[in-house]
Amino acid sequence: MTSPAPATRAYRRLSVEERRTQLLAAALTLFAHQPPDEISLDDVAEAAGVSRPLVYRYFPGGKQQLYETALRSAADELELCFTEPPAGPATDRISRVLDRYLVFVDEHDAGFSALLRGGSVAETSRTTAIVDEVRRAAAEQILVHMGVDRPGPRLRMMVRTWIAAVEAASLIWLDEGKQPPAAELRDWLVDHLIALMAATAATDEETAGVARDLIGLERPAGPVATLADRVGQVLGEATDRLR
Amino acid sequence: MTSPAPATRAYRRLSVEERRTQLLAAALTLFAHQPPDEISLDDVAEAAGVSRPLVYRYFPGGKQQLYETALRSAADELELCFTEPPAGPATDRISRVLDRYLVFVDEHDAGFSALLRGGSVAETSRTTAIVDEVRRAAAEQILVHMGVDRPGPRLRMMVRTWIAAVEAASLIWLDEGKQPPAAELRDWLVDHLIALMAATAATDEETAGVARDLIGLERPAGPVATLADRVGQVLGEATDRLR
Repeated sequence: MTSPAPATRAYRRLSVEERRTQLLAAALTLFAHQPPDEISLDDVAEAAGVSRPLVYRYFPGGKQQLYETALRSAADELELCFTEPPAGPATDRISRVLDRYLVFVDEHDAGFSALLRGGSVAETSRTTAIVDEVRRAAAEQILVHMGVDRPGPRLRMMVRTWIAAVEAASLIWLDEGKQPPAAELRDWLVDHLIALMAATAATDEETAGVARDLIGLERPAGPVATLADRVGQVLGEATDRLR
Repeated sequence: MTSPAPATRAYRRLSVEERRTQLLAAALTLFAHQPPDEISLDDVAEAAGVSRPLVYRYFPGGKQQLYETALRSAADELELCFTEPPAGPATDRISRVLDRYLVFVDEHDAGFSALLRGGSVAETSRTTAIVDEVRRAAAEQILVHMGVDRPGPRLRMMVRTWIAAVEAASLIWLDEGKQPPAAELRDWLVDHLIALMAATAATDEETAGVARDLIGLERPAGPVATLADRVGQVLGEATDRLR
């Protein structure tokens, strides 16, 4: 048996683009599950089964460049999760977006936490700009599902605030060992949006109009009707005493 | 006129503690209104009317030490804002806390934004730990006002998520030139909490119990009754059609 080991064969035969993709895939896997400060270029080289100088040939900026390239790639993947055909009840659409988002959070757990918690030396104005871009893309997609082109200040603040709440809830979810189950967290986040929208509609005419239109698309016994019924059952009597 | 200028007299007469306090006050003012990356040690020296070597004598770690000391001091000030006697309707207490919080945000605008947006070279695991400590203190105080000692996971997640929402709303508020007026933002944030609590109570027994107890302390025609009435008026008819 004198033929080279499979890894060595692969080493020789990969094209430039294939090699780059392979290194990036190795980096993505590492950065997904560990804080960037705990990962070295040697770890990436080892995970990809190549030498450290080879990694530098493809990523002359070293670990920081690999981290930012991996983040860019993960951000693109996450933004794809937000896309959803604008048909049917908005709560169904947003539920499907949240399902995909929570799969992404689950698959990038430690890296997601480290990135959003901040304080890493790998965090720069470039990485912050990528995170902000994802937040903006999320807000735009939510507004698409609300059928709003040019939101007024209150509606825009409402959507951006809810997105921050989703982000915070995801971090807490990771902290708590991914409890409750993702489907339960998703339902609570949908309820959160319905409730926040109702509260905002109470004092903002634009949000009230959008909410009425969206309720018109909902199914009977869907999330909006169920939440309204349950809140009435659980708190209606206590609230009625205030009137 | 041979007597020294007032600044020089002050320079000679300050005690060690007074000098430290004066330097820190100058740093706090600068870091409150500019991102840390835009401030140099020379700026602090100039603002305090002293020489650069004198600043180093008191803060041998230079700008980073000054930044972290100023942040520690601002965090202590902010945590004091959260304290509120646990009497009367919880919505009144939380409104007062939010009023003081928004004054703090207003007074530390650019520094607050830069800190929470991240991406600054002045951000370290130490500064992140201080920010997290403030968030934890805020959550604990909110739970005090809810009369909860040992919250279950859903209630804890609800409170921490709302705090993240408040933080996000404050950053948006600063971005939008401090619009709407602080009192309007405060009322919306209180409505947000009431709505989120109602939505969480719908599926969490502990939150339902806490919410009923808190409603019992509310005034007739207070924020809870007003929000319930307005949501009913604005969205009730649309929602009734789903039943």
